[in-house]
Amino acid sequence: MADLERIDHVASLVAARAEAGEHLAVIVSAMSGETNKLVGLARGAAGDDAVAEHFDDEYDVVVSSGEQVTSGLLALALRRRGLKARSWLGWQMAMRTSGDHAKARIQGFEDSALQDAVDGGEIAVVAGFQGVTDNGRVSTLGRGGSDTSAVAVAAALGAETCDIYTDVDGVYTTDPRIVPKAQRLEKISYEEMLEMASLGAKVLQTRSVELAMNHGVRVRVLSSFAEPGAENPGTIVCSEEEIVEKQVVSGVAYSRDEAKITLYGVADKPGMSAQIFSLLAAAGVNVDMIVQASARAEDRANMVFTCTSGQSALAREALEAPGNGVEFESLETTTDVAKVSIIGVGMKSHTGVAETMFKALYEKGINIDVIATSEIKISVLIEAAYTELAVRALHTAFNLDVA
Amino acid sequence: MADLERIDHVASLVAARAEAGEHLAVIVSAMSGETNKLVGLARGAAGDDAVAEHFDDEYDVVVSSGEQVTSGLLALALRRRGLKARSWLGWQMAMRTSGDHAKARIQGFEDSALQDAVDGGEIAVVAGFQGVTDNGRVSTLGRGGSDTSAVAVAAALGAETCDIYTDVDGVYTTDPRIVPKAQRLEKISYEEMLEMASLGAKVLQTRSVELAMNHGVRVRVLSSFAEPGAENPGTIVCSEEEIVEKQVVSGVAYSRDEAKITLYGVADKPGMSAQIFSLLAAAGVNVDMIVQASARAEDRANMVFTCTSGQSALAREALEAPGNGVEFESLETTTDVAKVSIIGVGMKSHTGVAETMFKALYEKGINIDVIATSEIKISVLIEAAYTELAVRALHTAFNLDVA
Repeated sequence: MADLERIDHVASLVAARAEAGEHLAVIVSAMSGETNKLVGLARGAAGDDAVAEHFDDEYDVVVSSGEQVTSGLLALALRRRGLKARSWLGWQMAMRTSGDHAKARIQGFEDSALQDAVDGGEIAVVAGFQGVTDNGRVSTLGRGGSDTSAVAVAAALGAETCDIYTDVDGVYTTDPRIVPKAQRLEKISYEEMLEMASLGAKVLQTRSVELAMNHGVRVRVLSSFAEPGAENPGTIVCSEEEIVEKQVVSGVAYSRDEAKITLYGVADKPGMSAQIFSLLAAAGVNVDMIVQASARAEDRANMVFTCTSGQSALAREALEAPGNGVEFESLETTTDVAKVSIIGVGMKSHTGVAETMFKALYEKGINIDVIATSEIKISVLIEAAYTELAVRALHTAFNLDVA
Repeated sequence: MADLERIDHVASLVAARAEAGEHLAVIVSAMSGETNKLVGLARGAAGDDAVAEHFDDEYDVVVSSGEQVTSGLLALALRRRGLKARSWLGWQMAMRTSGDHAKARIQGFEDSALQDAVDGGEIAVVAGFQGVTDNGRVSTLGRGGSDTSAVAVAAALGAETCDIYTDVDGVYTTDPRIVPKAQRLEKISYEEMLEMASLGAKVLQTRSVELAMNHGVRVRVLSSFAEPGAENPGTIVCSEEEIVEKQVVSGVAYSRDEAKITLYGVADKPGMSAQIFSLLAAAGVNVDMIVQASARAEDRANMVFTCTSGQSALAREALEAPGNGVEFESLETTTDVAKVSIIGVGMKSHTGVAETMFKALYEKGINIDVIATSEIKISVLIEAAYTELAVRALHTAFNLDVA
């Protein structure tokens, strides 16, 4: 939500649907820039304490006001159009959240008053991103939490679909800025969407997709910029079963925010790998791809793993800390890498997918550094300079280019 | 509260008192300009509906966020100083308010959790101006409601004193901008303060003084600009009994926001006055002073009354409406008038006060147009141009000038 003009536009979108007879709950985020402003104020007031444990609960009191304002304003803009509407704050609908302030998880939520209001034809304008803890404090779900709120409300109300209005008109086979021939997907499964989201396609928050999958909520991603009534089908995120025509590969994702760490000459002792990764986990490093190769003498091996570039210093620190029980000769970090992935539920039942992928990359002269696979995706780590070329080659190779 | 710097200053004032061992609940208002901004947004979103009944409940959702933000920020600023503090929102402490949104009245409030927290040495930072209705909606007390919130919290907690930090350092015998020799009063009774407030001295909201009087809460008005620990005694607003040395006249108040309406040739029928004032009441006009004079033939009289200048058009409209049962020959409105008043509980037991007042005005050549009296005040309506002269003359006549 950017400003009053934007709120008015959203009101017109909602009004068009309400006038078509739909019963609606609308979950709102803060106005553009407002959350950043509030975060700045909270950090300014707290000073050095902003990093301490004595920060997050009051931080939540401050930042949650952004959604509160928007919910009241949208309710007013809807009433202006002659519609019945009211705002619902986290505590009013008893959206129960954990006490992990600033990154709370939704614990439960069942509100018959909200249900009654919506059933009675009143539009519920719900302040997203916020909940209330068991001891009655405000807590927020962290950045992007409004998507998660929306799915939670949809689940509680047994809604037919949870429409998430974003700044894009759907989920694409890949980033259209790189591949102009990218296509909007009509449907995508939860599992694929999770891989897309975690691999760098930032349409939906991972948590909201997980919640939708767990509760079987159909999510539709569509454009908030479209005019009311205009063609705006978006992309449906749903269970695999609902997708009749399964593509072998549904999309190509990429992430440049990668670091490759190579440990040379790791002592080949029992439990050494376990020690390395338990150290990294303790330091809070999310390790992604892992390769271990016996490249040299028998008692020494090289090990390669990847994490986000932001965590590479943390990883290095943990591994080089004296007396940590890890033995290796040297450590090398590079962030000059990118991860490119193909994703598709159809892979489960098709063979030759990896072959097609590797061949397409080979034909463009792109070296594959590390490979990782899951049931529905294959990821490769390549030199960063080849990112766009690789994405385009794979998009074409799997027949995803629009005709 | 103006900005982060201001919040930090308030935190230092509060910290100084907490470190002296006081148990504190601090009631905060919104940051400077924030409420106006939020009101503007709400009106913008509602459009023409802003005047309708379908406005105020959501207006309250929007504007109450201002105090929410300040309460979180002040709690953080106090923790930064190593103090225990937390914010309390209207719904968290169950400050019960009526459903008259945007101008709600406090109905009741008793929160043992808040009491326990304060007793335990945690500073309670209470979002002022806001409460919660019986059906769980946010409601606000109207402009200046934070003073009223503060008195209500003080009453509920059985606080020794309710300190109200303002932009002045106390209650003065009159407006120091007009009379440089005006003195800060050490103490003033509730009754006197009420007369001062309703007569245009805008230090405290009338409602907060009424609430303090009803619950016997001692209120201290003091400067929020003073440095912590500096001499800042302020003015105590308390019961008459606590004031040992009663002044005959404690202060001189004035108001320029007055309109005088003269009805010429009112038919002298039984019930005509009643009809006039019930019409005005129905139109929402607060009539202040009234004079009826049989100035002409026996069956016709002239009538004079006053109201705020903002209501004079409303009054005229009500009186001139066809078929309203009121008969008069002509109506004249002037706003070129001011009301000047002397106030003092000592008047009850002293004679000659009116005489001193009228003589002082007469000596400066000031004509008195209308007179109104109560037990503890005498008000006169005079030509507006003489306002300052009258205030100075009365301030001197009643020995209020600082030595």
